[in-house]
Amino acid sequence: MPIKFDDRGLIPAIVQDNNTGEVLIVAYMNEEALRRTLESGQVWFWSRSRQELWHKGATSGNTLAVREIRKDCDEDALLLKVDPAGPACHTGERSCFYRALEPGDD
Amino acid sequence: MPIKFDDRGLIPAIVQDNNTGEVLIVAYMNEEALRRTLESGQVWFWSRSRQELWHKGATSGNTLAVREIRKDCDEDALLLKVDPAGPACHTGERSCFYRALEPGDD
Repeated sequence: MPIKFDDRGLIPAIVQDNNTGEVLIVAYMNEEALRRTLESGQVWFWSRSRQELWHKGATSGNTLAVREIRKDCDEDALLLKVDPAGPACHTGERSCFYRALEPGDD
Repeated sequence: MPIKFDDRGLIPAIVQDNNTGEVLIVAYMNEEALRRTLESGQVWFWSRSRQELWHKGATSGNTLAVREIRKDCDEDALLLKVDPAGPACHTGERSCFYRALEPGDD
């Protein structure tokens, strides 16, 4: 059963620290990003803002080594368990989810 | 800084078990689903397939009690830490991510 990419050709990929369980980053993969992830053992995304393939950590050195990939029940989301080489967030934080939702955010 | 709903008015919401760290389900919220989640303390989604608000567990009893909500660095994804009343997946599995990605899935 093939996994389902949406009408933009994308699937959300949740990246979780394999050791701590911390959710590090959520981004999107297209088919080519998933293929490169499987081939290289490192996480690749599709950057929606830059409209290009994105080897996570290629510039910063903070790559994400894939230990396991899981799919959800309806096969339209992926969960990747990784060993991060450094902070996953471009801000330098370990996780992109470093802030609580605050009153006024909605 | 308000969080960002996409061009469909949706934001992905990753739901994680507050005790075990297991990622349970990923679904989408619109503004009203997020408002109801904040007001009720239980997770509400927007069902894209049914095009309606979806009180997770309303039918099955397997509601998700919200302990914490975090936003990511660019404020277009949410992470909810919850105490689940039962299996989060409609299949009866604890998590929707109960299967590994397999050769041929891509």
